[in-house]
Amino acid sequence: MLEASPDILSRLGQTLIERKQAAPGSSYVASLYAKGLDAILKKVAEEAAETIMAAKDGQPDKIVYEVADLWFHSMILLAHSGLTPQDVLNELARREGVSGHVEKQSRKES
Amino acid sequence: MLEASPDILSRLGQTLIERKQAAPGSSYVASLYAKGLDAILKKVAEEAAETIMAAKDGQPDKIVYEVADLWFHSMILLAHSGLTPQDVLNELARREGVSGHVEKQSRKES
Amino acid sequence: MLEASPDILSRLGQTLIERKQAAPGSSYVASLYAKGLDAILKKVAEEAAETIMAAKDGQPDKIVYEVADLWFHSMILLAHSGLTPQDVLNELARREGVSGHVEKQSRKES
Amino acid sequence: MLEASPDILSRLGQTLIERKQAAPGSSYVASLYAKGLDAILKKVAEEAAETIMAAKDGQPDKIVYEVADLWFHSMILLAHSGLTPQDVLNELARREGVSGHVEKQSRKES
Repeated sequence: MLEASPDILSRLGQTLIERKQAAPGSSYVASLYAKGLDAILKKVAEEAAETIMAAKDGQPDKIVYEVADLWFHSMILLAHSGLTPQDVLNELARREGVSGHVEKQSRKES
Repeated sequence: MLEASPDILSRLGQTLIERKQAAPGSSYVASLYAKGLDAILKKVAEEAAETIMAAKDGQPDKIVYEVADLWFHSMILLAHSGLTPQDVLNELARREGVSGHVEKQSRKES
Repeated sequence: MLEASPDILSRLGQTLIERKQAAPGSSYVASLYAKGLDAILKKVAEEAAETIMAAKDGQPDKIVYEVADLWFHSMILLAHSGLTPQDVLNELARREGVSGHVEKQSRKES
Repeated sequence: MLEASPDILSRLGQTLIERKQAAPGSSYVASLYAKGLDAILKKVAEEAAETIMAAKDGQPDKIVYEVADLWFHSMILLAHSGLTPQDVLNELARREGVSGHVEKQSRKES
C-alpha cells in the first residue's frame, strides 16, 4: 500500500479553516462549526471514548479508525480556535528537544 | 519561528516503538507501557478532558499543549497495539479521497 | 420546593430493568438497550463531558442537569449489566465505614 | 447482606460540604478541593473512563466500584459548586414526572 504523505495534516488543517467560511449545511464540518464550541468538544469526548472501546476490543483496524476520528475532531477544534495541526507538531518537536532548525539540518544531510 | 517537519510524527512513532523494549523505570513512556493498556487509556481520557477544559478556558497556548498531550498518548496507544501514526495518516488520507499515489502525483506537479 | 425522596434511585433502577423487556422503539431507554453496550458507554462519556463543560461555564442549573444525565445513563449501564443503583449505594456506604447494620441502628435511634 | 439506606447520598453530600472548610492535607477530598475545579473535573473524566473500561471487561464488581467512584467525584463537584446530591435527585424525580408531593402521597398509601 502506498503511504500518505505526512503533509496530509497541513492539507486537512487548511481545508478545515476554509470550511469555517462555508454555509452551515454544506458539509459535516461546516454544520459542526455552526453548532459551536460545545458541540465540537462533545465530539472530541465521544471519539476519545470510542478509541478506548476499540482498544478494549483489541481490534487494530478499529483503533486506527477511532484515533483518526479523534485527531480529525481535535483538528476541527484547532481550526475553530484559529490554530493549526502544525502548532501541535511544533509543540511535539519542542518536547522532543529537537528545534525545527536542527531538524531541517538533519534532513538536508540525510 | 522555524517549523517542525511533519516527519516528527513518524520519528515519534519510531521512538515509541523502541521504548517498548526499554526497562520500565527508564522513561515516562516505558513506565506507562509497564502499567498496561488500561493505564494508557486512562491517560487518553484525561488528556481529552484537559483539551476540553483548555478550550473552555479559551487559551490557545493551552489548547495546543493539551492536543499535543492527547496526540502523544494516542500514539503510545498505537505503539502498544503494534500500530503507527502513519496508519492514522493513511486513514485520514483515505477519507479525504486522495490515495497516496494521487497525492504523490499532485505534489510532483505543484 | 418539595424534596424528592431518595427512593427515586431504586424506583428508577426498577423502571430501567423493566425497560429491558420492552420493544426497542417504545422509549429512549429501550432504544439505547437495543443499540447495545457501546452505545450506552458512549452516552456515559458524552454526559461526563457535558458535566465538565457545564462546570467550566459555572452554571449551577446546568451542572445539576448534566450530573442527572450522567447518573441516569450510568444507571442504564447498571441495569444493562444486571446491577442496581442500590449496589452503588452499598459500595458508597461500605467506603464510608458504615455498615448497613450500623446505619439502620442509627436511623432507629435518631 | 444488609442494604445501605438511600440516605447515604444526603449524608455523603453533607460530609463533602463540611470538608470544604477542612485543611487541604487533612483528607483526599480536602486535597482535591485545594487543587481546584480542573482537578475535580479531571477525576470525573478519569472515573467515567474507568467505568467504560470496567464495562468492556464485563466485571460486575468492577462496574459497581467505578460507578461509585464516578458518583462520588460528581458529588465533590456538586459540593464545590454549592450543590447537593438532593438537587440531582430532585431533577431525576422531575423528569420522571413525579413531584415530591405526589411521591410522598403514594408512599403513605402503599
